[in-house]
Amino acid sequence: MVLRTGEEYVNAIKHRNKVEIYVMGNEVNDVTEHPFLKPSILAFKATYDAAYEEDSKHLARAWSVFVNDEVNRFTHIHRSPEDLAYKIKLLRKLSHKTGACFQRCVGWDALNTLYVTTKLIAEKGKKDYYERFIEYLKYVQKNDIALAGAMTDVKGVRTLKPHEQPHAYLRVTEVTKDGIYVSGAKANITGIAAAEEVIVMPTRAMSEKDQEFAVAFSTPLDTEGIKVIVGRQINDGRRMENGEIDGLPYRSNHEGLIVFDNVFIPMERVFMLKDWQMSGILVEIFSAYHRQGYGGCKSGLGDVIIGAAYNLAKQIGVEKAPHIQNKLTEMVLLNENMYGTGMAASLDAIKLCEDGCWWVNPMFANITKQLVTRFPYEITKLSTDIAGGIIGTAPSEWDLKNPKLRQLIEKYLQGIMDYSTEERLRIVRLLENVSFSVAFLIESVHGAGSPEAQRIVINRIYDYDYAEKIAKYLANIEKSINFKENAEPWKKTDTEKIGKQEK
Amino acid sequence: MVLRTGEEYVNAIKHRNKVEIYVMGNEVNDVTEHPFLKPSILAFKATYDAAYEEDSKHLARAWSVFVNDEVNRFTHIHRSPEDLAYKIKLLRKLSHKTGACFQRCVGWDALNTLYVTTKLIAEKGKKDYYERFIEYLKYVQKNDIALAGAMTDVKGVRTLKPHEQPHAYLRVTEVTKDGIYVSGAKANITGIAAAEEVIVMPTRAMSEKDQEFAVAFSTPLDTEGIKVIVGRQINDGRRMENGEIDGLPYRSNHEGLIVFDNVFIPMERVFMLKDWQMSGILVEIFSAYHRQGYGGCKSGLGDVIIGAAYNLAKQIGVEKAPHIQNKLTEMVLLNENMYGTGMAASLDAIKLCEDGCWWVNPMFANITKQLVTRFPYEITKLSTDIAGGIIGTAPSEWDLKNPKLRQLIEKYLQGIMDYSTEERLRIVRLLENVSFSVAFLIESVHGAGSPEAQRIVINRIYDYDYAEKIAKYLANIEKSINFKENAEPWKKTDTEKIGKQEK
Amino acid sequence: MVLRTGEEYVNAIKHRNKVEIYVMGNEVNDVTEHPFLKPSILAFKATYDAAYEEDSKHLARAWSVFVNDEVNRFTHIHRSPEDLAYKIKLLRKLSHKTGACFQRCVGWDALNTLYVTTKLIAEKGKKDYYERFIEYLKYVQKNDIALAGAMTDVKGVRTLKPHEQPHAYLRVTEVTKDGIYVSGAKANITGIAAAEEVIVMPTRAMSEKDQEFAVAFSTPLDTEGIKVIVGRQINDGRRMENGEIDGLPYRSNHEGLIVFDNVFIPMERVFMLKDWQMSGILVEIFSAYHRQGYGGCKSGLGDVIIGAAYNLAKQIGVEKAPHIQNKLTEMVLLNENMYGTGMAASLDAIKLCEDGCWWVNPMFANITKQLVTRFPYEITKLSTDIAGGIIGTAPSEWDLKNPKLRQLIEKYLQGIMDYSTEERLRIVRLLENVSFSVAFLIESVHGAGSPEAQRIVINRIYDYDYAEKIAKYLANIEKSINFKENAEPWKKTDTEKIGKQEK
Amino acid sequence: MVLRTGEEYVNAIKHRNKVEIYVMGNEVNDVTEHPFLKPSILAFKATYDAAYEEDSKHLARAWSVFVNDEVNRFTHIHRSPEDLAYKIKLLRKLSHKTGACFQRCVGWDALNTLYVTTKLIAEKGKKDYYERFIEYLKYVQKNDIALAGAMTDVKGVRTLKPHEQPHAYLRVTEVTKDGIYVSGAKANITGIAAAEEVIVMPTRAMSEKDQEFAVAFSTPLDTEGIKVIVGRQINDGRRMENGEIDGLPYRSNHEGLIVFDNVFIPMERVFMLKDWQMSGILVEIFSAYHRQGYGGCKSGLGDVIIGAAYNLAKQIGVEKAPHIQNKLTEMVLLNENMYGTGMAASLDAIKLCEDGCWWVNPMFANITKQLVTRFPYEITKLSTDIAGGIIGTAPSEWDLKNPKLRQLIEKYLQGIMDYSTEERLRIVRLLENVSFSVAFLIESVHGAGSPEAQRIVINRIYDYDYAEKIAKYLANIEKSINFKENAEPWKKTDTEKIGKQEK
Repeated sequence: MVLRTGEEYVNAIKHRNKVEIYVMGNEVNDVTEHPFLKPSILAFKATYDAAYEEDSKHLARAWSVFVNDEVNRFTHIHRSPEDLAYKIKLLRKLSHKTGACFQRCVGWDALNTLYVTTKLIAEKGKKDYYERFIEYLKYVQKNDIALAGAMTDVKGVRTLKPHEQPHAYLRVTEVTKDGIYVSGAKANITGIAAAEEVIVMPTRAMSEKDQEFAVAFSTPLDTEGIKVIVGRQINDGRRMENGEIDGLPYRSNHEGLIVFDNVFIPMERVFMLKDWQMSGILVEIFSAYHRQGYGGCKSGLGDVIIGAAYNLAKQIGVEKAPHIQNKLTEMVLLNENMYGTGMAASLDAIKLCEDGCWWVNPMFANITKQLVTRFPYEITKLSTDIAGGIIGTAPSEWDLKNPKLRQLIEKYLQGIMDYSTEERLRIVRLLENVSFSVAFLIESVHGAGSPEAQRIVINRIYDYDYAEKIAKYLANIEKSINFKENAEPWKKTDTEKIGKQEK
Repeated sequence: MVLRTGEEYVNAIKHRNKVEIYVMGNEVNDVTEHPFLKPSILAFKATYDAAYEEDSKHLARAWSVFVNDEVNRFTHIHRSPEDLAYKIKLLRKLSHKTGACFQRCVGWDALNTLYVTTKLIAEKGKKDYYERFIEYLKYVQKNDIALAGAMTDVKGVRTLKPHEQPHAYLRVTEVTKDGIYVSGAKANITGIAAAEEVIVMPTRAMSEKDQEFAVAFSTPLDTEGIKVIVGRQINDGRRMENGEIDGLPYRSNHEGLIVFDNVFIPMERVFMLKDWQMSGILVEIFSAYHRQGYGGCKSGLGDVIIGAAYNLAKQIGVEKAPHIQNKLTEMVLLNENMYGTGMAASLDAIKLCEDGCWWVNPMFANITKQLVTRFPYEITKLSTDIAGGIIGTAPSEWDLKNPKLRQLIEKYLQGIMDYSTEERLRIVRLLENVSFSVAFLIESVHGAGSPEAQRIVINRIYDYDYAEKIAKYLANIEKSINFKENAEPWKKTDTEKIGKQEK
Repeated sequence: MVLRTGEEYVNAIKHRNKVEIYVMGNEVNDVTEHPFLKPSILAFKATYDAAYEEDSKHLARAWSVFVNDEVNRFTHIHRSPEDLAYKIKLLRKLSHKTGACFQRCVGWDALNTLYVTTKLIAEKGKKDYYERFIEYLKYVQKNDIALAGAMTDVKGVRTLKPHEQPHAYLRVTEVTKDGIYVSGAKANITGIAAAEEVIVMPTRAMSEKDQEFAVAFSTPLDTEGIKVIVGRQINDGRRMENGEIDGLPYRSNHEGLIVFDNVFIPMERVFMLKDWQMSGILVEIFSAYHRQGYGGCKSGLGDVIIGAAYNLAKQIGVEKAPHIQNKLTEMVLLNENMYGTGMAASLDAIKLCEDGCWWVNPMFANITKQLVTRFPYEITKLSTDIAGGIIGTAPSEWDLKNPKLRQLIEKYLQGIMDYSTEERLRIVRLLENVSFSVAFLIESVHGAGSPEAQRIVINRIYDYDYAEKIAKYLANIEKSINFKENAEPWKKTDTEKIGKQEK
Repeated sequence: MVLRTGEEYVNAIKHRNKVEIYVMGNEVNDVTEHPFLKPSILAFKATYDAAYEEDSKHLARAWSVFVNDEVNRFTHIHRSPEDLAYKIKLLRKLSHKTGACFQRCVGWDALNTLYVTTKLIAEKGKKDYYERFIEYLKYVQKNDIALAGAMTDVKGVRTLKPHEQPHAYLRVTEVTKDGIYVSGAKANITGIAAAEEVIVMPTRAMSEKDQEFAVAFSTPLDTEGIKVIVGRQINDGRRMENGEIDGLPYRSNHEGLIVFDNVFIPMERVFMLKDWQMSGILVEIFSAYHRQGYGGCKSGLGDVIIGAAYNLAKQIGVEKAPHIQNKLTEMVLLNENMYGTGMAASLDAIKLCEDGCWWVNPMFANITKQLVTRFPYEITKLSTDIAGGIIGTAPSEWDLKNPKLRQLIEKYLQGIMDYSTEERLRIVRLLENVSFSVAFLIESVHGAGSPEAQRIVINRIYDYDYAEKIAKYLANIEKSINFKENAEPWKKTDTEKIGKQEK
């Protein structure tokens, strides 16, 4: 049995070797107790607890053929379309349990990406990476490791290539018999301070000149030469107030910059080294996995927002008003649209290698993410509308705790008698903190690739020339036509196609 | 082998007994030759040909356990989620083959609806309907019958119930030992003049007072007492010109009003009789099946429009312009979003009875249709944008056929030399006729229920109270929560739920 | 008194010299009686009648300082912001009177464009054009001439310039002492067969190599060498049926291709000749005038559609349903947004020359048109939704005129008793013909420049660098800032700016 | 000369009598120095400074016929459509100067509302209110008083009327010869802690039973019995950090709850007392004034966001990428659409009383606000897209100030060399704080009435019956029609119409 409890995870983080982590200019002593980071730890922890909770363990556990044991699904390699569907079901549920980004998906998607990529490389004859990776996978599964994944380089000037601005992309500086040395930084790394290890991957397709940037590996956070600077988030100032309502201290998330200063990576943790031709393939495989996932976690946050808005409408007696019902329905529609295309990406999956590398349907995965770049802002707007002006003007919890003011607040902010004013304020703060969060808004736009990146893939997959042929046939310009066997006018998505570079 | 060829279908229609069908005020002699209706016959015919064409027979054939033979899928009872996915794949492909609504889906969805409904009634003890229906199903499958389905009553004043305005709903006027007599009319009946038989179903949930309107049956079109008045469609005037371009005479579709004047239905064709409690259930089952289907056929028409717009952009050399690429991508996004949710409705299907009644996922099916009520107008707008003003100002084919004018048209409407001016005009007319068609626009809004009907179902399925509980838990108002086993905050969709009336 | 009656206009058209006009392959004998063109004549006629009708003459008449008399506003040079507001008020009202595009705006906008452009050229010292134009203006005003305007060249391959494909742009082939000879064609010309004269303008900015294409002039339609090929429109086949309902024969519009085969233009009608530097300026001035106008005429058609949808909702008793009210309100919102920005373009006008050339506000005019490229499709969708499926399936007028069928139709399509079934069908046909018309949809997208053209202008007018400075100041990067005197961060729009080429 | 400087305003606030103001649970000693409130004072101050700054004094000053002197426009009674246009120009410019809501508009709109309302009451014979108000107006203008306006009651259960839940609406508890006593609370009061006086108005139309709630008056903040509880805002926790970048401490705004505990108002400051019939009229007049204003201030904030996004695009070298250009153009389009309808509401104003009460055009004012409830979320989304992930993950200013980290941040967050990393972070924080602010998002939805309130007015103004008549005329159902003189199918908006209650 290799399933850690949440508590075991927290203890592991608490007692690991010192990692150099900075928050708001100061080095953090204990991330599990720091007011800025503790909520992240609690959200990450939920991914472990889920494997033991009755309502979620059927989703959170999976059988690993690699270790012949039940493992936490967050370390599982997908073996079927159903596995992919379980993934987004699990994510939706964990959003319900946390109200936040629980930060363990990138590492999970990285595992699956490396599994497929090293397998594809192995099929071409180079088996080392695959063998190393399988060993690493077993280690991760057996120890239920908390992984982060790091893809996004800092990129500098977007019109320059890696070799034209080496500091802007993480790179290999030296290769020895035993391992490699890497330097550079990765940005926007979700949950980095709450992870035990990080899997590092290249951020884009590469040319031969960029080969030193085509590197994938894993490393513990407490390796020498690593520094983490945690980034700010909307409303984060409140976390430092040590309150219990306004800053929503229970569970949250963070993202950060991780800097590698000549860090040594032993060879058994190197999964790609200067294979520049495979870099784009790896990125595309990862992106699609990650884009699919957003159909689960973001719709889960959408549920939280819908529930909060509905509660606020009830508190003032308007939940049955037709325009409120209409707006709630619209929120559900948008939310289930994200989830539904995520389900399509899962259940209409693609088998990439013989013994079962299941990859998400890339068209639907990209559609899912593209919707996710749009709908959360709309859902937030609708929730603001339903919530009323109070979402922007409510008194603080400190006012509520001042007995003189509490009396006034209770008198004047009372709605339907079934609800206390404190409940009203708590839900207002929940809604404010979730609907205007980095996790629901900014991450939805930029996580797993900015909106334009999905459009490029969608545009590439669709076979316009075939659609044109259909049009010519129907307009009687061509008397006959070779219809594809597939109903969809998509290009064949095989490993050769996957690798095309996103420009 | 019970698979008819297209030709066999056309001959059957040609040689059936006289049916009283009117087009533009006149009775039609031979629907297979009438310029208004022939394109409908050709589109319907494509559903038969598909079972013999190499590129589609894997989609268009299915194995029936009822007749132990291969049947045309349009008569098939879905036995798995994959069957449901094959349905929308088949529909997408047939849209490519016809550029029209091929009109055979309503009858198909009616078969599946009656299968499930009579089965559910049988499970409650009343087995007659189910037994009769199975016999009828075998007859349909063995003879590969061309079916229409008739649900929508004329409805009169929407605020009155059936028993308050009996003429507005089709009703049973007499019941004898051998059968029943029915009178009334059904409106908006797709492909009615091209079908051999029609399956009639009630249009809404009923109360006890409305029981005489709760009736389902099938009947050949050539039964005494039936009249059909075919409705007009956008641009239909051109069909009567006997041209070959402007009216797009190859394949099209029609809808009509069918009137029943004291028509006798033998008891073995009666599948529901005054079971008012089951009327709403039947409607809901049908609606979801039909709403799912739109994810296939409308995305197929979307492909035609995308292909035509792309061709027109190429003809004038602008297909690579960033704003054109952006608009094409947006069209694909909208189109695949409709299709993707349709796939989710299929692959995440629900088993409604023990030995396998597979029903579409009702949340996703309703989302699919709701998207279909919105996106085609947007796709049409984008295609107008890409096509250029010529879509509204191009000369007629009659101008092209006037040698003096042809010379001018060829001179002045020439774009890139690879394309002839005739090709340009043909594609312009294809795009005009498809993008501004009843099939793509109006049917997308109102077919399978008007937009508000889907919103009511979506609103009903979603469990707002559960979402509220999640919010209260996350805001620390409730310290614990009973999470559902399912990740989705949906109400359980069982046969009891299905039956709730759409108001 | 120089105000013609509508009848006088029709007679003038009827009795002019023979013009070579083709409709559906055949030459037209009398445009005022041809079933395809008569509705256009009747819509054009409404612009004359308006000057005599009590409810509109305050809008349709204006005082001309050039002829010192009251003239039809469609020949008036705007002398104030209020004049510009009267323009769009008049257009909105005429849409109410016709339900169509009345086709006289392009000629009007051409007059104002030539007035401003020749004036600007005169201010630089070249006074001939201005003097000729004023003479022509007086002639037009005194005789209340029916003008068309022709700008759009056929353009061929969009990536080639005029001199690279001379046949694709109208050009001067010879210049003599007395006049010029021109050849080529202009496409998408609104109302061309219903006009007495046409003002021809260049279609884009030109380089020196393109100077022979930089030509503006006017000519009567009955000049030798001119041919007109009238284009098809959605639903036009019905016009030929000689019915009174389905084809909406009362008033309509048309667009066509006008071909010039070595046509002689006397010098006193030439208003620009090889002044390639002014070509872009002329286009920009015209475009903004024409884009503003759409705020009037399209919102007027929107009113017709709203009224028709509202009527159909009332006929079946649902006009008070919250979702219907919501959709009606949305239609009004979209409609008044188009009109409101048109009003802003008018009342916040710009004075371009000393003695009062009033030009519309180019930012607001372009915003107006950009909205017009989007909202009509949305309004049409909402009207389809409210109207119900009948909009795509209603019987023809020929069915209604068949006594046997009329009885059935009256029985089964009856709604609320206050309305006859014939009224229902008439409103259905009105809505179908207007909401799916070239005038409301396609012309809204492409008339006065395709959507991208407005975006280019909006992007050019807005001063991003200034907005950036504001941001830097507010972020305390710059301690001080030179604010513009104007509140809007727009570039100065003067005659020098106007001339920049739209690429 | 009655124009205060900004400094004079700050001093007046600093030295007024003690007002009981609470922020985050604690009473505030000096609002001008409190880190939470000082930014509000600075934004308010900008309205005074504007009257002395060269680039704005032409907008910020106006001539008062009441005091025969130049006054700050924020105390001015609009005397013409141009005055109304100056209002929104001034607001747009002040958004540029502050990047915030400067909080002085509600008081200004209250002045204009009371001017019109008391005038209308005076015309019916009751002149006291008008006379008192004019005296008060002179006092305000001569002393350039900083006014807040308080309309929104706390409302409790929305389905109950004021007399059914008296604590939920501010009310008159006693009337004496010298004045009145009032109790209750007003919520969401913009800038309340930064104002010297507050004008209180009723929040809705009233019935006779609600007459004690129909009261309007003004009072200094330092009157006995008044308490203010300042509400929280997104990101407000950062204001307490005493930093100079992350919390954007320069200028901001606040809203709060003001409580009246048996407060005495002398009769010369009472402008409406139990005139329940006029309560709805007052609300409608105020709402339209305030809705128009949003066209100015929100488009001004839009400029700031566009400028910041543009800067960030330039910093990484992508500002010319077509998709970035397209998104920038879309932001401008949305922004200018809000402003343009605001201009139409101004320049197409309505004269409500003989000697010149100029009211905004209510259709366009409501359209303006309705757009403002939608577009800011879209503009924010587009700016997030352009800005990149850094908007949600950037290090804090405290990291930048840590020399060890500064070096890393400068290395890894550097883009184009022209820009320093500190500039990048400053602009990121500006964008984050403005684009995710209460002022730009929540206030845009709920300020001046929630979205549904505008829809009700739009729906009421539009004359559907007239539109229906037009449709019937055009469908030839009616042979003639009485067209309105006005081109717009709007109901006459006069004082009688104004008063209809918003339900």
